[in-house]
Amino acid sequence: MERSPLAPATFPNLPAIDGVTLRVARAHYKDWDRCDLTYVELTEQTAVAGVFTRNICCSTEVEMGRESAAGGKARALVVNAGNSNAFTGFRGREAVEQIRGQIAAHLKCAPSEIFVSSTGVIGVPLPRDKAQAGVAAALTTAPCNWQTAAETIGTTDTFAKGATASAMIGDTRISLSAIIKGSGMIAPDMATMLGYIFTDAAIEPVLLQHMLSEANRRSFSCITVDSDTSTSDTVLAFATGKAGNAPLASMDDPGADAFQAALTDICLQLAKLVVRDGEGASKFIEIEVTGAVSDESARRIGLSIANSPLVKTAIAGEDANWGRVVMAVGKAGEPADRDKLAIRFADKWVAQSGLAVDSYDEAPVAAHLKGRDIRVGVDIGLGDGRATVWTCDLTHGYISINADYRS
Amino acid sequence: MERSPLAPATFPNLPAIDGVTLRVARAHYKDWDRCDLTYVELTEQTAVAGVFTRNICCSTEVEMGRESAAGGKARALVVNAGNSNAFTGFRGREAVEQIRGQIAAHLKCAPSEIFVSSTGVIGVPLPRDKAQAGVAAALTTAPCNWQTAAETIGTTDTFAKGATASAMIGDTRISLSAIIKGSGMIAPDMATMLGYIFTDAAIEPVLLQHMLSEANRRSFSCITVDSDTSTSDTVLAFATGKAGNAPLASMDDPGADAFQAALTDICLQLAKLVVRDGEGASKFIEIEVTGAVSDESARRIGLSIANSPLVKTAIAGEDANWGRVVMAVGKAGEPADRDKLAIRFADKWVAQSGLAVDSYDEAPVAAHLKGRDIRVGVDIGLGDGRATVWTCDLTHGYISINADYRS
Repeated sequence: MERSPLAPATFPNLPAIDGVTLRVARAHYKDWDRCDLTYVELTEQTAVAGVFTRNICCSTEVEMGRESAAGGKARALVVNAGNSNAFTGFRGREAVEQIRGQIAAHLKCAPSEIFVSSTGVIGVPLPRDKAQAGVAAALTTAPCNWQTAAETIGTTDTFAKGATASAMIGDTRISLSAIIKGSGMIAPDMATMLGYIFTDAAIEPVLLQHMLSEANRRSFSCITVDSDTSTSDTVLAFATGKAGNAPLASMDDPGADAFQAALTDICLQLAKLVVRDGEGASKFIEIEVTGAVSDESARRIGLSIANSPLVKTAIAGEDANWGRVVMAVGKAGEPADRDKLAIRFADKWVAQSGLAVDSYDEAPVAAHLKGRDIRVGVDIGLGDGRATVWTCDLTHGYISINADYRS
Repeated sequence: MERSPLAPATFPNLPAIDGVTLRVARAHYKDWDRCDLTYVELTEQTAVAGVFTRNICCSTEVEMGRESAAGGKARALVVNAGNSNAFTGFRGREAVEQIRGQIAAHLKCAPSEIFVSSTGVIGVPLPRDKAQAGVAAALTTAPCNWQTAAETIGTTDTFAKGATASAMIGDTRISLSAIIKGSGMIAPDMATMLGYIFTDAAIEPVLLQHMLSEANRRSFSCITVDSDTSTSDTVLAFATGKAGNAPLASMDDPGADAFQAALTDICLQLAKLVVRDGEGASKFIEIEVTGAVSDESARRIGLSIANSPLVKTAIAGEDANWGRVVMAVGKAGEPADRDKLAIRFADKWVAQSGLAVDSYDEAPVAAHLKGRDIRVGVDIGLGDGRATVWTCDLTHGYISINADYRS
C-alpha cells in the first residue's frame, strides 16, 4: 500500500521510557514475511488505564482488557496483528487466556496483569499454536525501538505512527511515548484502532483513568474516517513510575494539570495521525463548531458533518459545496436554527444568518480547497458550546481498498 | 447519466385519477433543454396529507407544506426541478409566496391550498421571474401523462419512477397513482426525495394523514442510500374523492384496512425505486432484522447496517464479509447480545450464536453475492421485533457523481 499523502515526513524521535521494554516476533498469523506480534514488558507496579470501543459486539480482548484495566496494574502488553479474534466465541477466549497464562508464568504475575489486543479480520479464532510460538519467540528476542513496535502493530496502515510529550511534575520532568495503529475508527477487515501510551510518571491508576478518559473525550472521540466503530478499538496508558516524581493521586496535586495537558496533547497527536492514514484520504479536514448549546452538542454536530459522505466527497472534489454542510448540521439531531447558522471555509465566511453572504467571492475558498489541510467552521448561533473534530475526505481510494479486493 | 442497472425495464402503466390533471412547462431554472416545472391541478375538496424531512435546516417549501398539510385541503401542486430553494432565507420565502399567489388567483382559492416543492442545488434563491413565466406557461399548456410528469420532477435521477395500487372500499374500486424522484435520501446538490401519491378515494384528511404516516414508517423511513437526510424530502398524498366510495373517516370503516394496505404498498414501491436509482448503485440490498427487542429497534439496527460504508463496499466487492455486519449491529446503539447473534446471506446462515457456523460453505453465498439483488438477514435473538430496510451498495460511481465533478 502506498504511503498516505498526508503522512508526516518521518517517524518522530520517541524517548525510551524507564520500565518499558519492547520486543517483536513473527507469529505468522497471516501468510506474510514480517513481524506481527508485539510484546511490551512493564516494570512491577506499573499503573494502567484504558478506554475501549463501545461496540456491543466487542472482542474478547476488549472485554478482558476492560476488566483488567479496572485492576489498575499491568506487567505486559501483547498485540497480535493480522487477526482481530473478534466474534469468535469461546475459541477466541481460550486463545487470549493461553497467551496471558504463558506470559504470567514467565513473569510470575497474575494473568489479569497481562493486556492482549488483536487486530485484523473478524470471525476467525486466533490460532493458538501460532500465538504460543510467537510469544515464546518474543520472550527471548532482543529489545527493539519504538518505530519497529509501531510498524509491527500495524495492518493496513501505510505508515508507522508515534508521538511524544513531556511535562514537569514538581521538579521532575516526566516523558510520554506512544504508538498507534489504524486507518480510521475501523480499518476494514483489520477492524481496529489500537493506541498505547507509556510514561515514566508516577500516578495512581484511578487518576490515570480519569485523565485518559478526559483526554479521549477531546481526541479519539473527535475523529472519524468512515463512521464505522470497530469491535476492537483500544487505547491503554501505562505509567511505570520510574521518573521519581511525587506520585500524583488527585487533580489538585502539583503537576497534575501539566500531566493532563501532556496526556491530552499526545492523544491528539495520535488521533490526528490515524486520520492522516484514513483509507484513501487525500485531504485532512478540521471542523470547528462554535455557538452550540453545549460542547457535547457541538461535537455531535461536528461528527454529523465529518461523517457525511456528501460533505466528504465534495471536499475530495475541491467543491465549496457549503449547502451539504447545512444539510449535515440539520440532520445531526441537535438544537440548531437554520436562520442563525453561519459557515466558513478557512477564515472566509460563505453563509451567515441562514443564507449566502452577499459579497461571496469563491476564489479564496476554491484556493483553500486545493490544499491538503482543509478547515471548515460552523457557528450555530445559539450558545457557547464548541468542539473541534477531524476527518478525511472520501475518495475512489476508499472504495478501492474496501470493495475492489476480496479480503 | 446512464440508466441505473437496477432500473425496471419500463415505466409502469399508471391509471388516470379522476380529479387530477398534470401539466409541465419550461421555467429554465438551469441551462438545460427540458421541462422543469410540473403543475398538478386538483379538483375542489381534494384531501391532502404529507410527511416531510426532519432535517432542522429544512427548506421554506417544507415549512409551508407542513403548515398547509395540517389544513387538509389541496387545489394544486407545483414542483420546481433544478433549484431546491433551501437555505435562501426571506428571498426563498418570497419566491414560494409568489407562486402560490399566482396560482391561487387563477383557481380562485386560498394560497394555503397550493403546495410547492423545489429540488436542486441548496443556497440559491429560486429566480422569481423564471418561476412566474414557468407557472404562466403551465397554466395554459395541454395536459400530459404520468411518465412526462415523473420525468419533469427528476434531477439526477437516471429513470422516471411511478407506481400504482388499488383497493376495494365497499363496492367501489379506488385507484392510486404515484410518482417520485430521488437518488437517495438526498440526491447531491439536488437535495431531495419528492414523492406524490394521487387517489380517487374519498377519505377524511386526518385519516389520510394517519395512514400516510403509517405507510411512511414502513417504507420511506426504511430506505437509505448514503445516510444523508435531505433538507427538502417531501411525500404528499392527495385524495380527490371522485371514486364515489363511502368516505373513509376512521380505521374502523369498511375498506379502511384495504386502503391502508394499498397505500403502504404504493409507498414501498416508490421507496424501492429510489434505492434502485441510488447514486452509483450496482446492487439492491434488502436487510431483514428479526429477534430485536422491538420493531423500532430492529429498524435502527437495519439502518446501521445499511448505512455502514464498510458493509456497502463489501457487497459492492461481492465479498461475504459478515464480520462487518457484526460490527454494524454492535455500533447501532440498540440492545444486542454478541453471543446470540446470527447472520445469513439469502437463506444461508454464516454465523450463529456469536461465531461462524462450523459447516460454513462460502460457495453458495459467493454465488448469491454475484447477483443484482442481495438479501442479508440478521437475527438478534432477544425478542420479537422485526423490520426490513433497503439500500444499495457503495461504489466508485458514488464517488464519481459526488466528487469528480464540480457542482
